[in-house]
Amino acid sequence: AAKGYAAQRIFASYSVFKGKAALSVTPVLPTFTKLDSGSLVVDRRGVMMFKFLPAIGERKYDNEKRQMIALSVTEVGSLISLGPQDSCDIFHDPSMKSSNAGQVRKSLSIKPHADGSGYLISLSVVNNILKTKEYFTVPVTTAEFSVMKTACSFALPHILGWGRLTNQLPRGTEGQPSKVDSQLLDLEWDK
Amino acid sequence: AAKGYAAQRIFASYSVFKGKAALSVTPVLPTFTKLDSGSLVVDRRGVMMFKFLPAIGERKYDNEKRQMIALSVTEVGSLISLGPQDSCDIFHDPSMKSSNAGQVRKSLSIKPHADGSGYLISLSVVNNILKTKEYFTVPVTTAEFSVMKTACSFALPHILGWGRLTNQLPRGTEGQPSKVDSQLLDLEWDK
Amino acid sequence: AAKGYAAQRIFASYSVFKGKAALSVTPVLPTFTKLDSGSLVVDRRGVMMFKFLPAIGERKYDNEKRQMIALSVTEVGSLISLGPQDSCDIFHDPSMKSSNAGQVRKSLSIKPHADGSGYLISLSVVNNILKTKEYFTVPVTTAEFSVMKTACSFALPHILGWGRLTNQLPRGTEGQPSKVDSQLLDLEWDK
Amino acid sequence: AAKGYAAQRIFASYSVFKGKAALSVTPVLPTFTKLDSGSLVVDRRGVMMFKFLPAIGERKYDNEKRQMIALSVTEVGSLISLGPQDSCDIFHDPSMKSSNAGQVRKSLSIKPHADGSGYLISLSVVNNILKTKEYFTVPVTTAEFSVMKTACSFALPHILGWGRLTNQLPRGTEGQPSKVDSQLLDLEWDK
Repeated sequence: AAKGYAAQRIFASYSVFKGKAALSVTPVLPTFTKLDSGSLVVDRRGVMMFKFLPAIGERKYDNEKRQMIALSVTEVGSLISLGPQDSCDIFHDPSMKSSNAGQVRKSLSIKPHADGSGYLISLSVVNNILKTKEYFTVPVTTAEFSVMKTACSFALPHILGWGRLTNQLPRGTEGQPSKVDSQLLDLEWDK
Repeated sequence: AAKGYAAQRIFASYSVFKGKAALSVTPVLPTFTKLDSGSLVVDRRGVMMFKFLPAIGERKYDNEKRQMIALSVTEVGSLISLGPQDSCDIFHDPSMKSSNAGQVRKSLSIKPHADGSGYLISLSVVNNILKTKEYFTVPVTTAEFSVMKTACSFALPHILGWGRLTNQLPRGTEGQPSKVDSQLLDLEWDK
Repeated sequence: AAKGYAAQRIFASYSVFKGKAALSVTPVLPTFTKLDSGSLVVDRRGVMMFKFLPAIGERKYDNEKRQMIALSVTEVGSLISLGPQDSCDIFHDPSMKSSNAGQVRKSLSIKPHADGSGYLISLSVVNNILKTKEYFTVPVTTAEFSVMKTACSFALPHILGWGRLTNQLPRGTEGQPSKVDSQLLDLEWDK
Repeated sequence: AAKGYAAQRIFASYSVFKGKAALSVTPVLPTFTKLDSGSLVVDRRGVMMFKFLPAIGERKYDNEKRQMIALSVTEVGSLISLGPQDSCDIFHDPSMKSSNAGQVRKSLSIKPHADGSGYLISLSVVNNILKTKEYFTVPVTTAEFSVMKTACSFALPHILGWGRLTNQLPRGTEGQPSKVDSQLLDLEWDK
């Protein structure tokens, strides 16, 4: 099986620049492995990457001190189903299954402003190995949050890999027709 | 007419793994038949496949004992229009038009948790021929259900085959221009 | 300018079959004219075609006696913004600007069931030339209407021709880069 | 790096023609710069262009006297998150960072009709250099506003450039597989 099947790199984020920090959101699509049969299987899952940069002057942000958190598709589901009064908290341990488990702790928090005029998005990163604590806050307006929800809803099926499914057929008609794989459907009737 | 015109197989499901069972959801696109005129007609309808696997240990699921139910586009319409208090039940008889009609009965049920924190999705399969009864339950959170609704809403027009319609034009401009088929539109004015 | 630039015909409708009539809904994309400059301009607008067939027996419908009404993008906007208690009526005169104006009158009506369980969709066609009156009624469930709303929302930007805009870029990167057309954007700054 | 990488020009607007003016809405996609590495970076951001033409007779509009305002993605977020009672105002200074700053002032206003039957969209352009004031008003129905919201929601991820991200993978599989760029994901685990 051919591993590591990827595409051209494209940089296109939705970014908001605020007084203390900037937040930039980008979808990262899944990668696929091609089986010997020619089928494609999701290899590494897609995520929605939230990147925070601290402000170091007027409209200047320090890319060296950035921190990132990669939301899974279900965590994106939390974000897009947030009602105007709802908040959500997401906790990650980047070294979860290694010997450093528990040493680094990231938490992303989304809380509505009391007056309903938007949300406060914040990321805290506590690193017990480096003895560092970092904390970023980015207030977002209702309009900015609406862009995030709309863009994340658009991206969600693509980070699941379903965009490949729905894009594939037209190519089928251009090239060589392959045999219908009826097994998948027949399975319901099998038992 | 050329039958069984299909595309590369792609495996990309949305899966949730819970204590008693796992549930995995995948769109299955329609297949098309190419007419001698070159037109394409939907041959077998697309569905949304819900696959359940029973748990057989911690984070282990038995693929041999899986059960599937294939939701039609209208059944997907039921799912995506469920309000927070709504439930829905879907009944299938896989051998409906055969001599075994009524012998196997599948029912998928989606019920909201009393506290509004998500849904319980369950599948029951009663097989009178094999004298078996199987029952799967998978609790899903609000965030997980939001992923299912968003991903199923995305997939719905594609399992109808409309993705082919909307993807086709750009290719038309690359290749040979074909005569406008004005009949379809003229029909409104015909009578 | 090259007229009548069209694509492969594809048949993929959403159809509901009921006691007195069947209703089938299909998007019809716009056609484009290619200017000498290479630009594409919408030539004939896209529509959402609603086709009604009267029942002539159990699960049998008479295609010869079909009647169609082609909804404009704004009429599709009416349909997808219908709340659970709302109704809408759409009137067409297919011979509007001809000498037969006023002789044929089509009206599509969408009314909610009193118990909130769906809608009644009906089409009336009164033809004063042929001295005929036809009337079709198709009750649709909440799930079926949800399919129509979701599928029509998906199709709406495509019947506007915006799918061409959003699909075009990837092709730009495969072929020859063309000069950026900055005029469009500069216009805001011009005056 | 290759600049000014653009695609075929396509004209496909959503237009409403009213008594005093016409309004036409078109997405303008971002342009990309190709880096030497082959990656693509957003060069100029996409916008949603709102163009107003004054009426100069029955169903006649003066294209020479048009005025435009280009909504950023966040301003589009304002528009698509407007509730039935909400209004929004958008101010632009087209010469913002030049010596003419403050001399031209454009404001777009969207206000609901008192009876809930739609919105009034108006553009005012005050030009202190030319000593001109222009004012356009276009009443839009609920159905027309629903088309704008649906079409702008569709376009939003594309004016962000995310359509390129989601369209790219299928091409990856047709051509030469490239090495997985794992840096992006690894960054979360780096610190």
